[in-house]
Amino acid sequence: MHNPVTVEVLRGNLVESRHRGMAVVMDGAGDVVFSAGDVDGGVFPRSACKAMQALPLVESGAADAYGFGDRELAFACASHSGEDAHVQLAASMLAKAGKDVETLECGAHWSSDQKTIIHQARTLEKPSALHNNCSGKHSGFICTCAHTGMETKGYVDYDHPLQAEIRSTMESLTGAAIGHDNCGVDGCSIPTYAIPLKGLAHGFAKMVTGQGLEQARAKASRRLIDACMAQPFYVAGTGRTCTKLMEIAPGQIFAKTGAEGVFVAALPQQGIAMVVKCEDGTTRAAEAMIAALLARYFEKDSSEQQALLSMANRSMKNWNGIHVGDIRVTTRL
Amino acid sequence: MHNPVTVEVLRGNLVESRHRGMAVVMDGAGDVVFSAGDVDGGVFPRSACKAMQALPLVESGAADAYGFGDRELAFACASHSGEDAHVQLAASMLAKAGKDVETLECGAHWSSDQKTIIHQARTLEKPSALHNNCSGKHSGFICTCAHTGMETKGYVDYDHPLQAEIRSTMESLTGAAIGHDNCGVDGCSIPTYAIPLKGLAHGFAKMVTGQGLEQARAKASRRLIDACMAQPFYVAGTGRTCTKLMEIAPGQIFAKTGAEGVFVAALPQQGIAMVVKCEDGTTRAAEAMIAALLARYFEKDSSEQQALLSMANRSMKNWNGIHVGDIRVTTRL
Repeated sequence: MHNPVTVEVLRGNLVESRHRGMAVVMDGAGDVVFSAGDVDGGVFPRSACKAMQALPLVESGAADAYGFGDRELAFACASHSGEDAHVQLAASMLAKAGKDVETLECGAHWSSDQKTIIHQARTLEKPSALHNNCSGKHSGFICTCAHTGMETKGYVDYDHPLQAEIRSTMESLTGAAIGHDNCGVDGCSIPTYAIPLKGLAHGFAKMVTGQGLEQARAKASRRLIDACMAQPFYVAGTGRTCTKLMEIAPGQIFAKTGAEGVFVAALPQQGIAMVVKCEDGTTRAAEAMIAALLARYFEKDSSEQQALLSMANRSMKNWNGIHVGDIRVTTRL
Repeated sequence: MHNPVTVEVLRGNLVESRHRGMAVVMDGAGDVVFSAGDVDGGVFPRSACKAMQALPLVESGAADAYGFGDRELAFACASHSGEDAHVQLAASMLAKAGKDVETLECGAHWSSDQKTIIHQARTLEKPSALHNNCSGKHSGFICTCAHTGMETKGYVDYDHPLQAEIRSTMESLTGAAIGHDNCGVDGCSIPTYAIPLKGLAHGFAKMVTGQGLEQARAKASRRLIDACMAQPFYVAGTGRTCTKLMEIAPGQIFAKTGAEGVFVAALPQQGIAMVVKCEDGTTRAAEAMIAALLARYFEKDSSEQQALLSMANRSMKNWNGIHVGDIRVTTRL
């Protein structure tokens, strides 16, 4: 099937580029509230499902044992920019489990945020694994292993018991079969699994409503989601879309991006969750799509809806600050 | 119409993202050698048409008056990375016309190349207009104005005589009507015009063959194209795709990228030129498409064809150097 054009990029009055995509909104009962495009095919959620992957950290008791609060739990669900506060928190989480940067198996990279890479270049010879955008998730993994007595070495491998537990957790939440057939390797070296968009959205709807979950999982899920909403800076960073979306309506919006044009969001008070995927993997389109989709569920003309729509449909300026074009979401969203 | 899927991005064995696009190859007579997708709709060529925009620099006699060789002419057609050698050349071109950085109206930005921005962050407080990826083109514009007696101030404006001359040159080369109706403002503040892909490709085929051009324009065109092929570093920079493509077959391939997924290339010895546009504006797809299209016109299994195909279809590694996926061009190209 052809996925619909969901985002247009205009230069002057003419459409210069077009993004296609799919989007779905689900409730905790598994009913489809909204959908566009192919929502039944497998999509790698990449970092958008980090809150699911962080469940063992809470459910194992590791988070309590190490005294983790909202900051640490939000950070375990984060794709951060590698700002100083992020790097310090990763080191501090590892230290609580008696570990350090050497235990991280995520690899190292410079920040993809321009302001941050300039700061890093001026203060570092080179980045370490603490600077990796996934270092919070990996620190959470290592803390889980350390607390439960699992070997930390190889914690990123498909056959490691932590990854097996994450697989089982994600299967249960999304209802999708997960295994070698739909497995890929993520940027930070852990397995990632292609899951239908509907299953992903339903999984997040379960997490925010608790519907169909055992009490312990329901509680752990809300604790992670609430932590992200309470500490949006630690989920992404200064000026980042996840952070900005959650700051628009504190405690009402959960939002998490993933590579290749995936974005997850949830509105716990309304009991719904949503996932978008830009077919071509472009972040600017996924950001516009999720903002527009979220805006549908806020009161017409409210300040929250206006703020969301101004992220969905925004003007582009050039190096001289001249307005050169616009990004706009189509009527399909 | 639906443009075909031209590039697939795989994670493991599964397609994670898809890019659609259009492509056309034309000869100097205006015959279509190859086409895929909508090649009749208007596309902003952005920086891909810089060699056309540099024609007044040569045709006015400015290039000769200031003693410009291949480096300067290649640089007038460049979207460079802002490496030290690029910045120095921009300053040197301006100095020959008695001008300096203050005359540039392109705005300033940090390099988009990671290695270069790290170097810039460590050696500069902030970038100047000399670091702008378009500073070579703008220096060429200013030299043209200075030599011909045009006012330099406002040289980026639609109504400036230099932009009017460029409009007339591009209309003549592409056969497309150009004016306010198909005009946008480019990243560096000059006008850019949406032109059918066929017209753009035909224009470049004329430039490399001289077919249908007055002798002076034919000569100026080949001088610019030959300069780019002789000095590929000054057209882009270290590790950049334009530079790498031209280094594969020195003197045989001309290649120039443009923002939002446009790429132009020409094979002067075969008398053909080609343009691709990725519908969603993504550079990785445009790079794969142009490499695959160029490969069609080299001898089967030659080292040049193999090098081009290895740029069209390439593997992706993660931060730990693990193979995680592949970018591959579909059979539509």
